[in-house]
Amino acid sequence: MTAIEAEGRIVVVDTGLMFPTADMLGIDLVLPDFSTLRDRAEDIEAIVLTHGHEDHVGALPYVLREIGVPPVIYGGLLTIGMVRSKLDEHKLRDVPLRELPAGEHVGAGPFDIELVHMAHSIPDAVALAIRADGKLLVHTGDYKLDHTPVDGMKTDVGRLAELGNEGVDLLLGDSTNAERPGVTESERVVGEAFRQIFPLRSGRIVVSSFASNVHRMQQAVDVAVDLGRKVCIVGRSMRKNANIARNLGYMNVAEDVLVKPDALKELPPGEQLILCTGSQGEPLSALTRIAYGDHPSISVERGDTVVISAKPVPGNELRVHDSINRLARAGAEVLHQEIAPVHVSGHGNKEELRTILALLRPRAVMPVHGEFRMLAAHAELARDAGVPASAIVLAENGSVVELDEGRVRIVDEVESGVTFVDGLSVGDLSDVALRDRRRLSEDGVLIIVATLATRDGGAVARPELIARGFAGADELLEETRDEAAQVLRELLAGDVAEIKLLQEHLHDSVGQLIYDRTRRRPMILPVVIEV
Amino acid sequence: MTAIEAEGRIVVVDTGLMFPTADMLGIDLVLPDFSTLRDRAEDIEAIVLTHGHEDHVGALPYVLREIGVPPVIYGGLLTIGMVRSKLDEHKLRDVPLRELPAGEHVGAGPFDIELVHMAHSIPDAVALAIRADGKLLVHTGDYKLDHTPVDGMKTDVGRLAELGNEGVDLLLGDSTNAERPGVTESERVVGEAFRQIFPLRSGRIVVSSFASNVHRMQQAVDVAVDLGRKVCIVGRSMRKNANIARNLGYMNVAEDVLVKPDALKELPPGEQLILCTGSQGEPLSALTRIAYGDHPSISVERGDTVVISAKPVPGNELRVHDSINRLARAGAEVLHQEIAPVHVSGHGNKEELRTILALLRPRAVMPVHGEFRMLAAHAELARDAGVPASAIVLAENGSVVELDEGRVRIVDEVESGVTFVDGLSVGDLSDVALRDRRRLSEDGVLIIVATLATRDGGAVARPELIARGFAGADELLEETRDEAAQVLRELLAGDVAEIKLLQEHLHDSVGQLIYDRTRRRPMILPVVIEV
Repeated sequence: MTAIEAEGRIVVVDTGLMFPTADMLGIDLVLPDFSTLRDRAEDIEAIVLTHGHEDHVGALPYVLREIGVPPVIYGGLLTIGMVRSKLDEHKLRDVPLRELPAGEHVGAGPFDIELVHMAHSIPDAVALAIRADGKLLVHTGDYKLDHTPVDGMKTDVGRLAELGNEGVDLLLGDSTNAERPGVTESERVVGEAFRQIFPLRSGRIVVSSFASNVHRMQQAVDVAVDLGRKVCIVGRSMRKNANIARNLGYMNVAEDVLVKPDALKELPPGEQLILCTGSQGEPLSALTRIAYGDHPSISVERGDTVVISAKPVPGNELRVHDSINRLARAGAEVLHQEIAPVHVSGHGNKEELRTILALLRPRAVMPVHGEFRMLAAHAELARDAGVPASAIVLAENGSVVELDEGRVRIVDEVESGVTFVDGLSVGDLSDVALRDRRRLSEDGVLIIVATLATRDGGAVARPELIARGFAGADELLEETRDEAAQVLRELLAGDVAEIKLLQEHLHDSVGQLIYDRTRRRPMILPVVIEV
Repeated sequence: MTAIEAEGRIVVVDTGLMFPTADMLGIDLVLPDFSTLRDRAEDIEAIVLTHGHEDHVGALPYVLREIGVPPVIYGGLLTIGMVRSKLDEHKLRDVPLRELPAGEHVGAGPFDIELVHMAHSIPDAVALAIRADGKLLVHTGDYKLDHTPVDGMKTDVGRLAELGNEGVDLLLGDSTNAERPGVTESERVVGEAFRQIFPLRSGRIVVSSFASNVHRMQQAVDVAVDLGRKVCIVGRSMRKNANIARNLGYMNVAEDVLVKPDALKELPPGEQLILCTGSQGEPLSALTRIAYGDHPSISVERGDTVVISAKPVPGNELRVHDSINRLARAGAEVLHQEIAPVHVSGHGNKEELRTILALLRPRAVMPVHGEFRMLAAHAELARDAGVPASAIVLAENGSVVELDEGRVRIVDEVESGVTFVDGLSVGDLSDVALRDRRRLSEDGVLIIVATLATRDGGAVARPELIARGFAGADELLEETRDEAAQVLRELLAGDVAEIKLLQEHLHDSVGQLIYDRTRRRPMILPVVIEV
């Protein structure tokens, strides 16, 4: 999410979200912290969406709820179609979504906005040319330089060259593959792989990819239909995206080719193509359920082929490997990107980034989209392209970058970071709660319940222990109860009767005993009750 | 860990361990469950170790303690040296460790054992030729077919061919890279990369690799010393392994080349080579501490180069990426296997596995070492090599495989699986405890403490709530206390006074309330105390 400001007015580019990493225990989604924008809600002229991927549009429902609905939201036709469906699910209606065809100019306050078509792993990806205050800024969005895209809609290098000739003051460029040498292969390569692989197979063919990868689905469908197979699309998000893409003309699948999952049992395996979600090993996805023999209408067996047409997002590797192993155990042949050309990246490599730098010849460059190492690699490419080091800025979340007469620099930091979505609650989860979860996940919890008789201040009964997620033998738990009783007796004999103090002492001495015996530090929760 | 049995006697091949995956919350190490061997301790003639990697020798201290010390433990010179040091740390002395040079035969009960030299990412890796009962079994251990290894010790294809000519009844072959086409590059390739990279650098050079990768260290040292750099070895396990390797003649580093970490500050960055642990992003390792600016004597800055000379083990990707990003932020250039030829695998690819199959021409094949998908890929290679499908066995942990007159098949299953090491406790951690940790890590814990006056059976005070790792607003916690009080009142009014029953009702109604309000399911622990 980037806010571009001129004359006190703002255009917001993208409203993405992140999926939680393994250390964000129990978290469902990760949003950008947009508290800075909340105070500026009145100044927002427009939100512009570069394409329909979740990391570019996923936070939109939360932005609309927390900041308010802006005057207008622009994007390509498919992007707007997908976003409309998402907002519907969140019961957000009457949002001013507008399709903006590439090449048209629209005004938004002091801004002139133009979209430029880029190739990516979803149709309708665009770069933005934003003019304001006599300056021209280009934001690439996500892109690759696919000169033979499946839909024929190439990255519009002609228009980019014109912008370069006009004079680009600042380039915000996708850095995802800035470390990778050479050029990313065309999406068409995957279709060619399907054309090699499918005809040799006589069993079921299952292809799993990202649910929004319309061209990937189209290519699999085209090859399968030529071979007389029927197509079944499985997984809620993939069915939804395929519907939107077909309705808007981005995907071409004849009605009589499609079958419902229930109808598959009537069809010989050799006449089936199953397109499904789950290429990241997501726990409840179609492919994971198939791999675990837990899908209501689809199973695989010897002779079947599963193509995992995606690369695991870092952090998902083990889940994907688990799916592959289970599918292999069921007898299926599993083809994945490590061993067959069944996936290509949606992002341009070094030489493509260099081409964009050559076309746009920007006066200043701010690498975006990617981890710091990728931004740093992109900065290196900009230096190679002749951009002076002083005109390259490595900004991070929260950086305020000022572009001023040929000079670009970080002038301020605003509140930034992430907001957790945890069940129904957005942003209520404290760092303390997350740290507690981590602690609980490592060593579990031990609750000591002690009752004191108020009248004489003596311990009434032997303390009780409740252990959860803690690996202690029964003898240790007995020893711990004795220790707790002993500590209480000594404290009470010494006239220490304040509950808080008793709990503190119990916590420390029991914690030490447990650590000495087990080298673990479960969370110790003493409960002392006066009766 | 594989047990080979003939005439009621046993040879154990390797005693490896696993490192815990992310879902094994709080677990330190994962051992094989060797309960089956415990009943057969008297029948063990020898343990043979193929090489010194942790996944092949790491469980040895636990095996010796739980099963007992066998008559003899064989391995190569370096393997035995490393194992001796490990056993010393575990205070296990007087263990009958014996170096067995490749090519020599030893008897062990009904077995004849011979080691055959193989190339791998640690010196002194061996295959085993085991003869018993008129049969010849070959176990490859881990290997690659490096024809230009750094120490000149090639995989002994000549001896393997002789064994093939003699007639191999069963091959147990490394399957790690069975899915990968072609041939793994020689270890020498990494040295050549160092020779390209190092001379161009004027700042510090930090090389991180596995602590046991003696040849990797040697190659980095050779290039650095030629350039006039001094060498500092950082990280306990790497210093230990380098010492053992130097003492046994596997590594050649002159004494005057080595410097201690404290001496680095006297040395210009351009005269330093730092070899360190942490190539997997391990939390307390040297490289991770350097990346976090937390190492007592080493920091990196602009102009420095960090080479991560390893590939992340699946599951460690995010940690490694985090290290790279932090090092890049500190200004260092970071070279890693995705973008520079600074790592090669220690395992042979498809064509190497085919070469071994061609040399040994085994009558039967049992793929070992690898996930199921890799075993399945190796089985495919064996079929291609002409081994009949009926003589290929895909065994899993616990399978009992019988080799009988040209026939190999799974005849039984024994108790198997894994044993967790959790702090000081081995194997005490139940599945329940692990499931509890998972639950706690997702949604935290909510403890309800209610006191009842025994005399009149009425609730004495408003129940108390303790929440940890749970993301609930204060109002929700108040509502929950009210709900708990209400539930207790109603039950007591209805003459339900049994503690267990009260707790059960509290658990269910509070759990439901929390779920309705938050869509989360924290662990609910009701504590009801009669006073």
